[in-house]
Amino acid sequence: MKNILIIGAGLSATSLIKYLLQHSTEYGWQITVGDISLDLVKRKVADHPNGRSIQFNIKDLQQRTEEIARADIVVSMVPTSMHPIVAQECLKHGKHLLTPSYVSHEIKNMDTEAKEKGVVFLNELGVDPGIDHMSAMRIIDRIKTQEGKLLAFKSYCGGLVAPDCDNNPWHYKFSWNPRNVVLAGQGTAQYKDKGQYKYVPYNQLFSTITNAEIPGYGSFEVYPNRDSLQYCELYNLEDIPSIIRGTMRRPGYSKAWNVFVQLGCTDDSYTMRDSHKLSYRQYLESFLPYIKGKTTEETLAHVAKLKQDSPVMAKFKWLGLFSDDIIGIKNATPAMILQKILEEKWILDANDRDLLVMQHIIDFELKGEKKRIISSMTYEGKDSENTAMSYTVGTPLAIATKLLAQGHIHVTGVQIPTSPELYNPILDELEELGIQFNEEEISL
Amino acid sequence: MKNILIIGAGLSATSLIKYLLQHSTEYGWQITVGDISLDLVKRKVADHPNGRSIQFNIKDLQQRTEEIARADIVVSMVPTSMHPIVAQECLKHGKHLLTPSYVSHEIKNMDTEAKEKGVVFLNELGVDPGIDHMSAMRIIDRIKTQEGKLLAFKSYCGGLVAPDCDNNPWHYKFSWNPRNVVLAGQGTAQYKDKGQYKYVPYNQLFSTITNAEIPGYGSFEVYPNRDSLQYCELYNLEDIPSIIRGTMRRPGYSKAWNVFVQLGCTDDSYTMRDSHKLSYRQYLESFLPYIKGKTTEETLAHVAKLKQDSPVMAKFKWLGLFSDDIIGIKNATPAMILQKILEEKWILDANDRDLLVMQHIIDFELKGEKKRIISSMTYEGKDSENTAMSYTVGTPLAIATKLLAQGHIHVTGVQIPTSPELYNPILDELEELGIQFNEEEISL
Repeated sequence: MKNILIIGAGLSATSLIKYLLQHSTEYGWQITVGDISLDLVKRKVADHPNGRSIQFNIKDLQQRTEEIARADIVVSMVPTSMHPIVAQECLKHGKHLLTPSYVSHEIKNMDTEAKEKGVVFLNELGVDPGIDHMSAMRIIDRIKTQEGKLLAFKSYCGGLVAPDCDNNPWHYKFSWNPRNVVLAGQGTAQYKDKGQYKYVPYNQLFSTITNAEIPGYGSFEVYPNRDSLQYCELYNLEDIPSIIRGTMRRPGYSKAWNVFVQLGCTDDSYTMRDSHKLSYRQYLESFLPYIKGKTTEETLAHVAKLKQDSPVMAKFKWLGLFSDDIIGIKNATPAMILQKILEEKWILDANDRDLLVMQHIIDFELKGEKKRIISSMTYEGKDSENTAMSYTVGTPLAIATKLLAQGHIHVTGVQIPTSPELYNPILDELEELGIQFNEEEISL
Repeated sequence: MKNILIIGAGLSATSLIKYLLQHSTEYGWQITVGDISLDLVKRKVADHPNGRSIQFNIKDLQQRTEEIARADIVVSMVPTSMHPIVAQECLKHGKHLLTPSYVSHEIKNMDTEAKEKGVVFLNELGVDPGIDHMSAMRIIDRIKTQEGKLLAFKSYCGGLVAPDCDNNPWHYKFSWNPRNVVLAGQGTAQYKDKGQYKYVPYNQLFSTITNAEIPGYGSFEVYPNRDSLQYCELYNLEDIPSIIRGTMRRPGYSKAWNVFVQLGCTDDSYTMRDSHKLSYRQYLESFLPYIKGKTTEETLAHVAKLKQDSPVMAKFKWLGLFSDDIIGIKNATPAMILQKILEEKWILDANDRDLLVMQHIIDFELKGEKKRIISSMTYEGKDSENTAMSYTVGTPLAIATKLLAQGHIHVTGVQIPTSPELYNPILDELEELGIQFNEEEISL
């Protein structure tokens, strides 16, 4: 399998492209990289002799058919909603597919046909989802092999900013899709605690936080991340009494973010009237009642039950939310406007380095003894282009592509990397490449 | 126009059927009543010589075509989502249509074709929407005729329980679709206050309450009702600085209901795992964190910031939410389970009488003087069958049907009763039939 097609050359494809080009001569690969922006592709392929740069329009059926037909392996780095279009074409021509994204229902439904064609659709091969599955499953399988009984599984992940670049009161900058950060958590988080299923609606999410410590990086707070219950099945933990997955932020973030949630600023379901005329202050006032004689600052403090000199108010002031300048977006939802406000302030400066943190906390009983494994991973980016986020998303995907091209992956159908055949070689190589977990075991 | 077809013979059709049959001999009408339940129709038509009872299946195309083709006027009392099927058939055969429901986008899009066919589709002819439009527009148009300037429009409505039947701590019983009560307010309420557009997300809705007084009935609380901004256009109030519509409840209801909202009990978007195994107490615990050493009651009080002996806790206890009995619904959403719990407790007993309350508060300036009109309507039901709700929904619809049959309505296309041609004769007759507003005017 010599021809590898990468569709999408954005931020998270950087490490992937670099890795595959680096190994291309050794393994005799031809790497085609396509993106709607040819400039972007050319910058990333950089005239590598085994690289082929093309402008690629995913909606162009003829091009899609031709390029996928001539490839042996397709790596789809397009937005999640577009994967099914790529996958459908892969099915038609019997080609392997890799993506870093969650398995959608549409992709899941292609399982039988993919098996019939003898191809594998490998998904969730980034960092979260991806490295989280692999590193957790290696520990879970090890405990089970030792005949340990699993009692509790907690798994946290966060994309943040490196300590020495952490210079704003939110202790947060965007290292990933800002829209997803604004909309994060909408719906109902689900988890299991001491045998009981628990449901956390969006309006409670950012006040349902716990603490976490990462050696060398200090304190974090964690809010529940979507549906943790499905991981009982995915990780073969059907009988585990407690399971929760969470998103990590620096302490204080959730309390302030919760004000946006409570006011309705993250709502993406309707457009605000005359949104292009709103100032920052008026945007905020739209979600506050009129209280006679009170300033916007006082009304906000009153409604959100905050003191004027509180850290939350400081975060709001730092974002410029009391400014009389016009924001200026037409037909915008509250979430679209909030995203614009945050993008102006939470940008990674050129030399800023982001931080990826992950931690699993696994309680189990072994030979009558209760124990806890705390397994932590941290990775810091190099700069605002070579981020920890893009490196930890792209690298496991690149390794999996190599393994597949070398014929080392024998599963077919729609897969995620929860089996030893997949996680062992990928985790081993990730460790060599600097993405490693430190494990601590304590008695309970 | 002699042949009137009524589709749907449920609760709100009772007064409508009765009125039309009563007047049928005088005007030479033939009234056909169809429902999926022939028994129900027969009970309501009661062998009246001008009545024809049929079993009617809205999904049966042939029957739908035949019955609508032979009618002159169709009154659709089916669930809102079914009106378009009826309306499409009315378009085909050029028949007039009346409904008590909000104009959907589908119905709105039939406006041009209805005008071409010379027929009228009269909607929002119940109580809310219906009587609210008519009574408000009569006052608004009067003020405008006097060259008054409108400053503020508030309009409230509630379906409650008559004071002498009000014997539970929620001061509420179901007089209308319980599912709609459980899901009420989801989305974002929108209104205008002193020139500023205001948006209230669901999680703030039941704490954004104001007070109202109805002469002879005491105090009520009001929460904002959906999108009030569209009424600027519908009522020709484009420049009014303040406009809000609200739903009325008895004091204390919203604070307690808000606990359900905050916990996520009204969520209808996912099914709870093993929902058939849950006891009332476990249902509640699903939405509460585990706090070591605390009972469910204590955890709820802690999370909702309530005292154990508070009126809200009393309301929860009265509903039986701390019982260990099994609720027993399979694959149920939180909202479905809550509805079942409430239906067991908030039922109207056979002799219970419901109460319909409506109030408009309209501020305006006339010849340099600021004034306020407070216009209030109350109506009590007779028993749990002959409710105020069904009478106030069915009666304006019946009067409009009569006016149309008599040739007194000359508008065509998709309409709601906001013009004098419609509201004057209907309001006049409503008054004769006991549905009347008391108006008070004060200087501000």
